[in-house]
Amino acid sequence: MHFASDNTSGVAPQVMAALNAANEGHVPSYGADALSDAVRDKMRDLFDAPEAAVYLVATGTAANALSCAALTNPWGAIFCHRNAHIEEDECGAPEFYTGGSKLVLVDGPHGKMDPEELRRTIEHTGRGGIHNVERGMVSITNATEAGTVHNPDDVAQLTEIAQEFGLPVHMDGSRIANALARLGCRPGELTWRAGVDVLSFGGTKNGCMGVEAVVIFDPARAHEFEVRRKRGGHLFSKNRFLAAQMLGYLAGGAWLETARHANRMAARLAEGIEDIAGGSLLHPTEANAVFATLPRALHRRAQEAGAHYYMWPFDQPLEGDDDEPLTARLVCSWATTEEEVDDLLDILR
Amino acid sequence: MHFASDNTSGVAPQVMAALNAANEGHVPSYGADALSDAVRDKMRDLFDAPEAAVYLVATGTAANALSCAALTNPWGAIFCHRNAHIEEDECGAPEFYTGGSKLVLVDGPHGKMDPEELRRTIEHTGRGGIHNVERGMVSITNATEAGTVHNPDDVAQLTEIAQEFGLPVHMDGSRIANALARLGCRPGELTWRAGVDVLSFGGTKNGCMGVEAVVIFDPARAHEFEVRRKRGGHLFSKNRFLAAQMLGYLAGGAWLETARHANRMAARLAEGIEDIAGGSLLHPTEANAVFATLPRALHRRAQEAGAHYYMWPFDQPLEGDDDEPLTARLVCSWATTEEEVDDLLDILR
Amino acid sequence: MHFASDNTSGVAPQVMAALNAANEGHVPSYGADALSDAVRDKMRDLFDAPEAAVYLVATGTAANALSCAALTNPWGAIFCHRNAHIEEDECGAPEFYTGGSKLVLVDGPHGKMDPEELRRTIEHTGRGGIHNVERGMVSITNATEAGTVHNPDDVAQLTEIAQEFGLPVHMDGSRIANALARLGCRPGELTWRAGVDVLSFGGTKNGCMGVEAVVIFDPARAHEFEVRRKRGGHLFSKNRFLAAQMLGYLAGGAWLETARHANRMAARLAEGIEDIAGGSLLHPTEANAVFATLPRALHRRAQEAGAHYYMWPFDQPLEGDDDEPLTARLVCSWATTEEEVDDLLDILR
Amino acid sequence: MHFASDNTSGVAPQVMAALNAANEGHVPSYGADALSDAVRDKMRDLFDAPEAAVYLVATGTAANALSCAALTNPWGAIFCHRNAHIEEDECGAPEFYTGGSKLVLVDGPHGKMDPEELRRTIEHTGRGGIHNVERGMVSITNATEAGTVHNPDDVAQLTEIAQEFGLPVHMDGSRIANALARLGCRPGELTWRAGVDVLSFGGTKNGCMGVEAVVIFDPARAHEFEVRRKRGGHLFSKNRFLAAQMLGYLAGGAWLETARHANRMAARLAEGIEDIAGGSLLHPTEANAVFATLPRALHRRAQEAGAHYYMWPFDQPLEGDDDEPLTARLVCSWATTEEEVDDLLDILR
Repeated sequence: MHFASDNTSGVAPQVMAALNAANEGHVPSYGADALSDAVRDKMRDLFDAPEAAVYLVATGTAANALSCAALTNPWGAIFCHRNAHIEEDECGAPEFYTGGSKLVLVDGPHGKMDPEELRRTIEHTGRGGIHNVERGMVSITNATEAGTVHNPDDVAQLTEIAQEFGLPVHMDGSRIANALARLGCRPGELTWRAGVDVLSFGGTKNGCMGVEAVVIFDPARAHEFEVRRKRGGHLFSKNRFLAAQMLGYLAGGAWLETARHANRMAARLAEGIEDIAGGSLLHPTEANAVFATLPRALHRRAQEAGAHYYMWPFDQPLEGDDDEPLTARLVCSWATTEEEVDDLLDILR
Repeated sequence: MHFASDNTSGVAPQVMAALNAANEGHVPSYGADALSDAVRDKMRDLFDAPEAAVYLVATGTAANALSCAALTNPWGAIFCHRNAHIEEDECGAPEFYTGGSKLVLVDGPHGKMDPEELRRTIEHTGRGGIHNVERGMVSITNATEAGTVHNPDDVAQLTEIAQEFGLPVHMDGSRIANALARLGCRPGELTWRAGVDVLSFGGTKNGCMGVEAVVIFDPARAHEFEVRRKRGGHLFSKNRFLAAQMLGYLAGGAWLETARHANRMAARLAEGIEDIAGGSLLHPTEANAVFATLPRALHRRAQEAGAHYYMWPFDQPLEGDDDEPLTARLVCSWATTEEEVDDLLDILR
Repeated sequence: MHFASDNTSGVAPQVMAALNAANEGHVPSYGADALSDAVRDKMRDLFDAPEAAVYLVATGTAANALSCAALTNPWGAIFCHRNAHIEEDECGAPEFYTGGSKLVLVDGPHGKMDPEELRRTIEHTGRGGIHNVERGMVSITNATEAGTVHNPDDVAQLTEIAQEFGLPVHMDGSRIANALARLGCRPGELTWRAGVDVLSFGGTKNGCMGVEAVVIFDPARAHEFEVRRKRGGHLFSKNRFLAAQMLGYLAGGAWLETARHANRMAARLAEGIEDIAGGSLLHPTEANAVFATLPRALHRRAQEAGAHYYMWPFDQPLEGDDDEPLTARLVCSWATTEEEVDDLLDILR
Repeated sequence: MHFASDNTSGVAPQVMAALNAANEGHVPSYGADALSDAVRDKMRDLFDAPEAAVYLVATGTAANALSCAALTNPWGAIFCHRNAHIEEDECGAPEFYTGGSKLVLVDGPHGKMDPEELRRTIEHTGRGGIHNVERGMVSITNATEAGTVHNPDDVAQLTEIAQEFGLPVHMDGSRIANALARLGCRPGELTWRAGVDVLSFGGTKNGCMGVEAVVIFDPARAHEFEVRRKRGGHLFSKNRFLAAQMLGYLAGGAWLETARHANRMAARLAEGIEDIAGGSLLHPTEANAVFATLPRALHRRAQEAGAHYYMWPFDQPLEGDDDEPLTARLVCSWATTEEEVDDLLDILR
């Protein structure tokens, strides 16, 4: 019963097969190989974006931090949700890569920036001229850290505010597959057509070994990204193995299949939680994460029975008042089975 | 006939097998898995260094730049050979990760810092007190960018000078397997026993997909490295797949076998070059790279026949005076075959 | 009627006299002169801190940002009040000098961090291990941006929390003279005896031309500060003229006199404001700034009559509902006269 | 007998008078005052550059490092002379402000880059595409650290090479007054008409207290400079006192008078040195510094008699073989007197 994170899972079969297949002979290094070309073409097709620049890196933090650095000056504020991954889980990588940008936090329910809060926060920033940091960029997480999803209209609402102030927009899509699986819309609709300039397109959490694509819809921004990737030590010499992962992941829509599966497992789990006495959901379950509030005693029972997941916040003690409602985060992945979900629910019931 | 670089090769079978084997079930992410533990133990054994901290990253640039950042302040000079990889081939990654250190270049034949030049250069730096950058650290490449090897005495000669000035020493060992294969000494002898504080232990060029270990012999320096790795986006969530590569690489001495093979292929090629009329070697062939000086016409003939390699410097034109001697770099790897070597020599003869 | 800022004033006579007197002959540059020595000794005496290191810079932003850089790693959070000068008015200088620290904002009334909020915020930060930025340092502004003052107990309450977590403490004392004038305590009581490690001791706003001292109570931190000052371009070649300002400022307690005067003017103004119909104070007037809430029509009348001051926030329009209460910041300095204060009050009445 | 540096001198009378005169009443802070406007206009006139942006800072290191940061990306190489001030005397400030640029050193006699060396060095840099740092900018020192002067043709020879490669050009003119005094040409001729994009126009060494103007001939680059100045802590609140210095310095050509005087003193000293047995000049004396080679015994005699100057390099011992020729640097300033020069020559004779 593994619900600690989607990244405790392994590599999906089709991705592993692609890696094995790519291991043939000599090919040019540093991305000058045919597979790297194929990824670029494939992503352009997928996004209906024939001019887009596409780069591969191995981690989500690299994808996000490099994207921010390509979009804002060191003195430009990055507007993001208070609980965004770039704020809470990257040890200051955006600050490091940008040369010291300030992340300015925007409130909003369920991991989504409230549009009026975003506008107010942007307006408040940089009013003092040279004395303040300037307005730099907006970063939207989709699916969010709260397991919710922005649909194209939600995204457009935020990007329109950004555009009013002339700010470029990044989307942290480390779980964009889960968002797209939920929404059923085309990738282009959720991104550049909705006003996104640069996308971190996640692979790792949803079945890859370690690969994320950065899709830069305005190719004028591409060169800087490319230099920063190298300078950050994120250009792979054997880049074909990043490319092979991404190609195996995308082939035949495998990536949407794995995401749909993860979302289904989360929905099944969420439904079960709500049926339990004292069980409720802190956030709507729209992607692959379930934020389950349950009496402490149930959490203790589940974890004693071998269920792996984190309390949210994670440092809540399992010892204490049995009836106190505590929240936990349970994440499903391509590798989660119905049995695991049902086993956990059985224990909780 | 692939001699452009050792990184145009694929993944050695034992490493690929290890990757496939590691793809089983759920394991804790971010290095808290059993394979990551096993790598640490294995490296400590290998180096007779039971206290060493061991971290994995995916690229040599990351390993080197993070190591430098952990060893010197932003205002500390990094003393290295004029043609070191950190100076010439990392797009300023050491400057980026250190927050703006100055690389101070040391001359010396065949890619090796001349000890007296090193001493003179260190002495010259930082004499002006607060007005100058301070002396920060020394970085030694082994095997060198010129395909030569420092033996333990060579290393000790340099590290003793560093120690006189209280400077820590980094070894860029992206090809340390080739050096050790050449020398036949123990890894500890070539590194910490010879005065090295932090080692970039390469895997990628010698048969891995993308993994380098950073071995920090003084564990007091470990925490800072770990934070910087995360902050640089180089901590893998599915770290087991970095660990699996390294374990497959090390298992049963496979890594030394692949390195010995690459060195043998280079020696065979070097010998052949010297037998050709007008052929000579710019540097002694001590590892897996051959710096072959040949009449221009021979280079043209080889490349027209499909041999892949770079002129050195790479922008020398193949059109021009046929007899003019031009140098090229030819690199062998674990995947180079005797046939490739002999085919190339046949063409050149 | 100049109330826009204390920095619109000129140089107090005794400081100007010291500058003129210092302009005699040749003296060693870069702080190796007798006046620079005298400042160090004078500050040590003033603070009963015979080991303290003392450095001069010309701006408050330099003093603060360099102090932060000397106290925290790039990955250490800086805890400060939401409206601290380092957060709102330095264009990201702390982020720049530290190499990308994150300022983590603490709420609290009247410009002062609430101790429980500080504790909660520190506790919340860095819980996620390597994924989060670490806890770095605490910065306290005294007098605050809201014109209030921390007394030694207030300071100790905050520094004790910092110490629980092992965090060093910086005090932004660009207006510490106003705080000390208010409190009547000894400088050491308000700083190192209350747990402050590094102090920005302002001079500019209170009668100097452009000089701030950084007082480092733990001399082990001094060298790094000194290097960073030079590297930041803040080491003056003709340092005697920074030293002369500071000596003139301190001589005979002149600095406390100018601060007392500024505080008295602010108190006189505040008292008058409260007597006006519709007039009130947003914050208690404890130093030299008055946050006056008045009906819009009165602000318009005052400004039309030539009073210089900023609305707070400054972009509130003077046109609109006459009765709407709007707040403004009015700052007094050593150069403010009773006549100016009374003239303004006459207009407002 | 003060020849240690031009910055051991004090403030020239007309500059001190201007400072005193500026200390009148309240004026807007941060450069919004009339004197700051007047400096901008005055500098535009002086340089026949009506569009130029003009900013004031207090130190030469700030002027240079901020200028570099405004002209090159972090991954752009800065080409400068091996002994340029930005390389040898600023503790890595250019690396800090640029975010890690690499200074790539160019050889050439007497402190001046040899044009062919510059071309060769630029050509050599960045050839390897993404693997190398890119070509960023060129920085020329005038007058040089060797006391020599580039005339407009010399400058144009270097800037034309820069332009071939599309590189902007900075001039470190911390002693440009001495250069202009020597050449007798107009400031515009030696700078923007000769291809310079940004100039550090020194004041401090030649009679100011601490002020340098940065003149940005292409106003499109101005905003970034302005933000970086603030972010670096180099924007003065009481900016009028930087402006007053510069205005006093420029008024009536005072600055050229002080520079001409310093140059004359250096010429007088140089002539005397050459007449001494065993005396010679390491570099031609074209500005205000004399590089005098003399038998050790004479240096010892001079210093024992109270002459202040640095050996060059400064750590040559005064004890040793009496006849060994040793070089020293002797710098004259606006404050050097004929008596000082003659006294020193008398001692040496």
